Amino acid sequence: MKLGQRLSVSVLLLLCVTWGANGGNILVWYTEGSHWINIKPVLKTLIDRGHQVTVLVPSTSLFMDTSEPSCFGYEPFNVTVTKENMEDFINDFIHFFIYEMDHMSYLQMYIRYMDVLRVQVQYTLNYLDGVLKSETIMKKLNEGKYDLLLADPIFPGSDLVAEILGIPLVFTLRYSVANKWERHCGQLPQPPSFVPGAISKLTDKMDFSQRVWNFLFYAVQDIVQECFFWTKLDKYYSEVKGTPTSACAMMGRADIWLMRTYWDFEFPRPFLPNFKFVGGIHCRPPKPLPKNMEEFVQSSGDAGIVVFTLGSLLKNITTEKGNMIASALAQIPQKVLWKYSGEKPATLGANTRIYNWIPQNDLLGHPKTRAFITHGGTNGIYEAIYHGVPMVGIPMFADQPDNMVRIKAKGAAVTVAFNSMKTEDLKDAINAVINEKSYKENAMWLSSIHHDRPMSARDEAVFWIEYTMRNKGAKHLRVQAHELTWYQYHSLDVLALLLIIILFILLLFIKTCTFCFSMCCGRKGKTKRKAE
Amino acid sequence: MKLGQRLSVSVLLLLCVTWGANGGNILVWYTEGSHWINIKPVLKTLIDRGHQVTVLVPSTSLFMDTSEPSCFGYEPFNVTVTKENMEDFINDFIHFFIYEMDHMSYLQMYIRYMDVLRVQVQYTLNYLDGVLKSETIMKKLNEGKYDLLLADPIFPGSDLVAEILGIPLVFTLRYSVANKWERHCGQLPQPPSFVPGAISKLTDKMDFSQRVWNFLFYAVQDIVQECFFWTKLDKYYSEVKGTPTSACAMMGRADIWLMRTYWDFEFPRPFLPNFKFVGGIHCRPPKPLPKNMEEFVQSSGDAGIVVFTLGSLLKNITTEKGNMIASALAQIPQKVLWKYSGEKPATLGANTRIYNWIPQNDLLGHPKTRAFITHGGTNGIYEAIYHGVPMVGIPMFADQPDNMVRIKAKGAAVTVAFNSMKTEDLKDAINAVINEKSYKENAMWLSSIHHDRPMSARDEAVFWIEYTMRNKGAKHLRVQAHELTWYQYHSLDVLALLLIIILFILLLFIKTCTFCFSMCCGRKGKTKRKAE
Repeated sequence: MKLGQRLSVSVLLLLCVTWGANGGNILVWYTEGSHWINIKPVLKTLIDRGHQVTVLVPSTSLFMDTSEPSCFGYEPFNVTVTKENMEDFINDFIHFFIYEMDHMSYLQMYIRYMDVLRVQVQYTLNYLDGVLKSETIMKKLNEGKYDLLLADPIFPGSDLVAEILGIPLVFTLRYSVANKWERHCGQLPQPPSFVPGAISKLTDKMDFSQRVWNFLFYAVQDIVQECFFWTKLDKYYSEVKGTPTSACAMMGRADIWLMRTYWDFEFPRPFLPNFKFVGGIHCRPPKPLPKNMEEFVQSSGDAGIVVFTLGSLLKNITTEKGNMIASALAQIPQKVLWKYSGEKPATLGANTRIYNWIPQNDLLGHPKTRAFITHGGTNGIYEAIYHGVPMVGIPMFADQPDNMVRIKAKGAAVTVAFNSMKTEDLKDAINAVINEKSYKENAMWLSSIHHDRPMSARDEAVFWIEYTMRNKGAKHLRVQAHELTWYQYHSLDVLALLLIIILFILLLFIKTCTFCFSMCCGRKGKTKRKAE
Repeated sequence: MKLGQRLSVSVLLLLCVTWGANGGNILVWYTEGSHWINIKPVLKTLIDRGHQVTVLVPSTSLFMDTSEPSCFGYEPFNVTVTKENMEDFINDFIHFFIYEMDHMSYLQMYIRYMDVLRVQVQYTLNYLDGVLKSETIMKKLNEGKYDLLLADPIFPGSDLVAEILGIPLVFTLRYSVANKWERHCGQLPQPPSFVPGAISKLTDKMDFSQRVWNFLFYAVQDIVQECFFWTKLDKYYSEVKGTPTSACAMMGRADIWLMRTYWDFEFPRPFLPNFKFVGGIHCRPPKPLPKNMEEFVQSSGDAGIVVFTLGSLLKNITTEKGNMIASALAQIPQKVLWKYSGEKPATLGANTRIYNWIPQNDLLGHPKTRAFITHGGTNGIYEAIYHGVPMVGIPMFADQPDNMVRIKAKGAAVTVAFNSMKTEDLKDAINAVINEKSYKENAMWLSSIHHDRPMSARDEAVFWIEYTMRNKGAKHLRVQAHELTWYQYHSLDVLALLLIIILFILLLFIKTCTFCFSMCCGRKGKTKRKAE
């Protein structure tokens, strides 16, 4: 171990001893990619506040580095899926979204999506096996005497483990496709008429055809997920519990759902007392830039800089695309800092520098920053909102296109299509968000909404995690809807009864009228006959 | 003016000069009774924070004393209704609920209720005339350059005035009957299957018959209120605006709804980003009691004391009822402090003292307090929750029975019926809540929920009022549902289209089958005929 490393470990250990006797003991479910990036600052804050944090880490983890000096305790476990399997899955997933989807019919898209879902479930269950079917791990978790399980449900199973360990559960979640998990498992009310399903690319202002589309999106997703995801999970849960168990109902047992959005990004929508909107938990004021970088930034003069990244998952793009992008960047008066680990494009301008890594938050918080070119990941968008930077979106997959639709609808971004964009499109988009005042004004307005709340996102997330530990759960914030069937929830049984009663009364009325009429006519007939 | 009064005015003026240049200018809509008691502490906090507060006060006000030294500015206005009219209306209202309702059929009750509604609307419009049709008042309000109108919508019309003055509007509201205003005008989602309508006396755990009841309660209330309240208000609004105007839609323009409940009292339910739950805004730590009272309280020894009040509206009860209550109180080991301004009962025990006024919050916060006998008003209940005191409810009218159902369901109260209770019932109820541990434990649990939140109720109310001023409204927290019709909201048009498509496909399928079948049969027939 080098001296610097040893020193930083000592400082960390010094910080770690603040784990007080009153601190809680928190178990963190495994996660990956930007989800891990997002949860880390919360864990650090929890440690600073005297809690003990232990993170479950699968042997295939791509983003969690257990060898890195850290205040977290790690609980590694083995999974049968290899690191290569995971990388292949992610690359296949990205390829599908970026290169295949545009040339597919809806049916082809859904068939391909079902394949993705099938692999996802298979890996999910493999990961779960690594925890649940390992006696050593389960013994350790039982002996760990944890006060709470904190989980991003993107890797399902945490609810089952929390139930087995008998501890409260707090979810931290960005979204599920069409919000199926939140709607059905969390009982979050979500009328399709004004709440666009996650990744639907719709806004809350929908015309008739869009409302039909959103309605169908919910319905199709519900069916597909039910068939290809939940039935398999139900079977697994039932086997583990030894009794028929609904994985969705188990998910609904979560005490608190920390949703990683807020009204700066999300369209206003109904929610529940145990849903807390903590978008931007990872944002923080900027730190000074590395010296070289600061010099480059300062050299931009009044024109300022543009920050450009396509996220942590996309490592490379085609040479042609690289040249096209570089050529657009070369034509703007700003200096550009581009996070890119692929081949250096031949058309790279003197105003553009390529970096393997950039301090994204610090750059976005720099007074010289004029725009952010982003793939539209929630983490980056939130950093731009936090610092009030207008955006150019080049969304590609997952929630990225949907995210950019939101920021565009709020007037703080222009979007260009990754596959079809030309040099001119990108250049015009950058010039627009920098030179047309409204984009900056709207970005500042979103920033103001973000900052102007009773407590910061991270503090609120930490508050509700500690709250759940203090109160050994938060079941009093859970709606009674969890105990109702879908037809009870929508009062369909009540409506059926009322309809039957109305029909019965109507029938009785008609029968009585017919009877009276026939009696009258009969009597008249009789009278007539008598008169005859 | 006496010296003491002069001194207190000076102190108040000294406090008032803290109105900074940055403070907002807030107009407060007129209100009455416990609603005024509830809003006052928020106004005082706003003044302490440097804002200017002006309260509209009708000439008939029963609870707002403009001659009292105060930091508020008052804007008095004349109404044609007399003080006697108002008192008669309130007494008639109380009489109906306490003495008449028990002997009425549902139909009679509704006919009587419609009468009450009719008078309420008439008085509402008279009050509104006092503001809107007075040129002097409207000129003053216009010249006042207010930043915000804060209103309890129990007296409607504030939304119309806010619209005319062109200023943001914040509501502070306990409830409307069956939550019609919140549901229809505020777009608060409220499935009848698990959200009991306000004053329905139901909990969130409903069996089938209760769900039918709740559904019908919503429906009947919607119809009655539509016919006897909203149509008249719509007519008035349309006349004033000179264009067809929906009073309910106007109400829906409110920026923030401060709901005066929280999850310590309310059953968990869906809500919206512009609905903030601030139950208990008036609660505060106890102050020392007056010397004589403290001596009496201390004389109770270990047995402790019981605090008893039937609220601010009910001044008197029958001699018989008074004796019955006094007799029950005489039989308990605790000392009793009874707020009562009627005739002294003959059976009054030595342990009971009658007061014209009691410092209710300070008594409930006293360590010797064992129980609170209450009519079930929200203000009193919240003080008891704040201090963790178990309750005996003697609810009478308005939301009181419903309030007590909630506290009883949460295990912190026993309820006795005002009309039918006997000495034994009251005595047993008091003994139960004092001697059975669970009541105190549950009261303490509610108190813990009340206190354990990110910020206090009053601070949260003040935050959102200031927020609305700072941001000149909070329209970005308003759901898009406001722009939809009821059938669009419930996607009924979408369902109709999908149904038509399904029917069309079905019909096409049947027709095709029939055609194919007839072709096949026809050909067979032809072949047969040819063979013949």
